[in-house]
Amino acid sequence: MSFALTILGSSSALPTSERFPTAQVLNVQERFFLIDCGEGTQIQLRKFKVRLGRLNHIFISHLHGDHVFGLFGLLSSLGLTGREHDLHIFGPADLEQVVLKHLKMFDIHLPYKVIFYPLDCRKSGIIYEDRKVEVYGFPLKHRIPTCGFLFREKERLRKFKPGIFETFDIPVAYRKGIQNGQDFTMPDGNVIANETLTYAGPAPRSYAFCSDTLYNRGIVSRIRGVDMLYHEATFSDADETRAAETGHSTARQAAKLAREAGVGKLIIGHFSARYKDLGVLLKEAREEFAETYIAEDGETFSLPLKKNQTYLT
Amino acid sequence: MSFALTILGSSSALPTSERFPTAQVLNVQERFFLIDCGEGTQIQLRKFKVRLGRLNHIFISHLHGDHVFGLFGLLSSLGLTGREHDLHIFGPADLEQVVLKHLKMFDIHLPYKVIFYPLDCRKSGIIYEDRKVEVYGFPLKHRIPTCGFLFREKERLRKFKPGIFETFDIPVAYRKGIQNGQDFTMPDGNVIANETLTYAGPAPRSYAFCSDTLYNRGIVSRIRGVDMLYHEATFSDADETRAAETGHSTARQAAKLAREAGVGKLIIGHFSARYKDLGVLLKEAREEFAETYIAEDGETFSLPLKKNQTYLT
Repeated sequence: MSFALTILGSSSALPTSERFPTAQVLNVQERFFLIDCGEGTQIQLRKFKVRLGRLNHIFISHLHGDHVFGLFGLLSSLGLTGREHDLHIFGPADLEQVVLKHLKMFDIHLPYKVIFYPLDCRKSGIIYEDRKVEVYGFPLKHRIPTCGFLFREKERLRKFKPGIFETFDIPVAYRKGIQNGQDFTMPDGNVIANETLTYAGPAPRSYAFCSDTLYNRGIVSRIRGVDMLYHEATFSDADETRAAETGHSTARQAAKLAREAGVGKLIIGHFSARYKDLGVLLKEAREEFAETYIAEDGETFSLPLKKNQTYLT
Repeated sequence: MSFALTILGSSSALPTSERFPTAQVLNVQERFFLIDCGEGTQIQLRKFKVRLGRLNHIFISHLHGDHVFGLFGLLSSLGLTGREHDLHIFGPADLEQVVLKHLKMFDIHLPYKVIFYPLDCRKSGIIYEDRKVEVYGFPLKHRIPTCGFLFREKERLRKFKPGIFETFDIPVAYRKGIQNGQDFTMPDGNVIANETLTYAGPAPRSYAFCSDTLYNRGIVSRIRGVDMLYHEATFSDADETRAAETGHSTARQAAKLAREAGVGKLIIGHFSARYKDLGVLLKEAREEFAETYIAEDGETFSLPLKKNQTYLT
């Protein structure tokens, strides 16, 4: 029942020897979602033991090189490893043409199908869902159209209270409906309220990704209450003007948003290579929001199953 | 007086967690030549402490992604670091269009000038020279047009024998000519042979790069007697057929060429990711040519100043 984010790259445009450009992989119950794909992503995936074949969905926030340049090599390598199943790529509308042109220039013929889902980064809304997860896109404010992403588990089935089948004779055919929240009508017409029979299951976990973006209070409503937020923190307080000029945020600004949105924890990343010591960024962020952590390449942030309040009663 | 090759990437198309795709940097007397530029080259350059600003010349052997995909990020990063001086790129004729299209797709505006030198990989000949170095291109046999490169120091100035100025009163204005091999005509008309006055300087050192290529005896004449040869060795004996089918060589084939060409030492690389243990490739190569070494990312192979035979007499 994993819900775990692994950082593949935590640098901004200029990588360092320790930090690759932006890329992350989110494991939601063994579905692996790749988020951005900076140069070297395929190398980091191997290094941190994420099997390439497990990736089926890639989300690209915007078309700056430090978020995309690893995609061409990754697509090519997926072909070389014999992949045959479809790959789904979500990103700004121009991404499809960029990728197709690139494959043509290098005469790369993929043995699998790539399905593109063009995103309008000015709008918010659901962009992907399956049985267990749903993903929302929402606008960030950067120099070019840029999407934020919110991954959220779907509501789980409710759980029967211990011993309930000794009290009530519930036919198997009714059980799924009850786990979905229905009441139970007994053969004599009596109705047993769902709450008498079940607990709520573990609460859905959620993760929001915001890179690259200006400080933008407009996203607070989009990310409110997420368990984990990644927000870029390219600069320190001292470079706040530079942040604004380049369409980026400071660590403090990221933390202010985290506090206002009431998130569980904040991970900051996309650091400018100018900071040899990131302690100052962490300090500034924690002055606003204590539960702030520095993204490090190869680090995994896991969310345990979250007991639902109802379940606790 | 360096002549040192640093391996930045030694894998073939599929990188591993230990081996990046092909890239190398050759330092010839503090001129740094980048040879191929696979994905992640800029990260390796930082990791192995090669200053980006020192790179002025890039040589691309062919347009397969594992030799080029790092170029776009590198060009972009050179811009971000404030580079203003020209960058010279040598490669197959289509490379210029590939790079220009890419820069346009990603709306990258470089603050420095890139000068392209289109190579006809079917021909041999000098493609670059300056005061200290000359570079030759020559054809390899791969699935697409592919160039090998040979870097050679120019002949150095001859050195005056110890005490020679006590025997002969040689005016300063004549000395450079004599170091270049001229005889010395004394005021009385007597001619002193150059060999009486000077030794030859250290012999020029040389390095040849051959990746990717079929086993091709045709290159022996091009690389004869080089001090150091890098030759791809994608496969082992057991996969010789696969090597031929894919336009690659075995380690043994690389070593045979090294022996026939009488090179100083052979470095093998561009290994298929299928080999977890490269011992077998090294063993097979050394059966043909003892002075064979395995390329490892981050390793530097240096050639000391080579005393000229004349100098030794």
